[in-house]
Amino acid sequence: MESSPLLKKGERLLDLELKGLRIIQDPQLFCFGLDSVLLSGFVRVSAGAAVLDLGTGSGILPLLLSAKTADTHFTGLEIQASSVDMARRSVSLNALEDRIDIIEGDIREAGALFYGRPFDAVISNPPYMELGSGKVNPESAKSIARHEILCTLKDVIRAAGMVLKSKGAFFMVHRPKRLEDIFISLKDNSLNPVRLRFVHPSSGKDAEMALIEARKDSRSALKVESPLIVYGEDGEYSAELKEKYGY
Amino acid sequence: MESSPLLKKGERLLDLELKGLRIIQDPQLFCFGLDSVLLSGFVRVSAGAAVLDLGTGSGILPLLLSAKTADTHFTGLEIQASSVDMARRSVSLNALEDRIDIIEGDIREAGALFYGRPFDAVISNPPYMELGSGKVNPESAKSIARHEILCTLKDVIRAAGMVLKSKGAFFMVHRPKRLEDIFISLKDNSLNPVRLRFVHPSSGKDAEMALIEARKDSRSALKVESPLIVYGEDGEYSAELKEKYGY
Repeated sequence: MESSPLLKKGERLLDLELKGLRIIQDPQLFCFGLDSVLLSGFVRVSAGAAVLDLGTGSGILPLLLSAKTADTHFTGLEIQASSVDMARRSVSLNALEDRIDIIEGDIREAGALFYGRPFDAVISNPPYMELGSGKVNPESAKSIARHEILCTLKDVIRAAGMVLKSKGAFFMVHRPKRLEDIFISLKDNSLNPVRLRFVHPSSGKDAEMALIEARKDSRSALKVESPLIVYGEDGEYSAELKEKYGY
Repeated sequence: MESSPLLKKGERLLDLELKGLRIIQDPQLFCFGLDSVLLSGFVRVSAGAAVLDLGTGSGILPLLLSAKTADTHFTGLEIQASSVDMARRSVSLNALEDRIDIIEGDIREAGALFYGRPFDAVISNPPYMELGSGKVNPESAKSIARHEILCTLKDVIRAAGMVLKSKGAFFMVHRPKRLEDIFISLKDNSLNPVRLRFVHPSSGKDAEMALIEARKDSRSALKVESPLIVYGEDGEYSAELKEKYGY
């Protein structure tokens, strides 16, 4: 844990252990998790691409992905003002102002917000949880990041379909149990699933996450890649997590 | 290899190494493969259930599944007369006439054929390959078993939806690249995917098969089960294949 004049009360500075990158996190808001890290490893973006992150939160995906190619440009769209402010300070902290823009706005208005400037790729780690099961505080920042309060899965996929160039790629992490909804919404928005990878806590367990790549107006065949196993049989992080992500 | 008076010229008798079961195969027609064996291990049927196999071929699925419960009844629907004849002889050979009926008929007419006698479960290992890619002899028995000449994926799923009881289960093996089509056809026929398992040749390879369970008029959440790995790192069959299927 480090300190910085850019930090506000209650916030923490986390070393991402990737090319010296650091990120501000606030445990009162919502801290990024393994899902964002694994999605960053799943995403493939070309040099020079313009990439939009739908619901960027603390900016974790643009920060991690900025290290993958030298001249990709990221726009992070985020509805919560407190997260926007924090993500912008993380961008400054890493001197990435020319590579990452954080924009305050609503995913449901992405089509209008970015009208006439389509993206090469869209990425998203959206809220997973449907409303209607259990009590949720609709104003808490954590709830908004986790539950479909301000946007649903359909909203996210519709936004991706609207802002992508033809043949552009959409990358998302979500829960396996939403796979049917995902496939149907993708089809409704001219997005064709081309790559799917499931994340299992260990080799004998059900998948807990699905990593998905879809392409706009594509007719490529879907591949289901090798499973991503988080923990090996020894209870330690698997070789892939250690080697690829430094766990 | 054994012989039997029920065998015709060119046919072979194969020991299924499961409760003394034997099956007649004809290499000139189409021999069952690992996909049928793995589907038989994926299927869950209750005692006393009435089960329909859409496109039963040589009857491999009813034969293997007859050993799983004592009083389940199987109907195998098959369009090719030569396969119907051979499957019936395999049923006789195993003295399973009271448990397995082989019916000659078209999957596309299953709704009419079984009108008024819905099934508890439907199983299918349908032709995988779409037409239009490469030359196919439309009259060869092998082509009909492998290619969508006489029925498409949609036909199979529509038939399953028509003949199943409400809450009845549909089990199918198919190619991962058809997953989008499968999900969309299932939804169109009031079938809800509830269980999915991918089969990978080895742990680092893309999936080559998808095992799917869907339920009619169900709202259960989809589970993506642990991956089924065919070969271990030593190049031998994996522990699951050895232990569960005797490979």
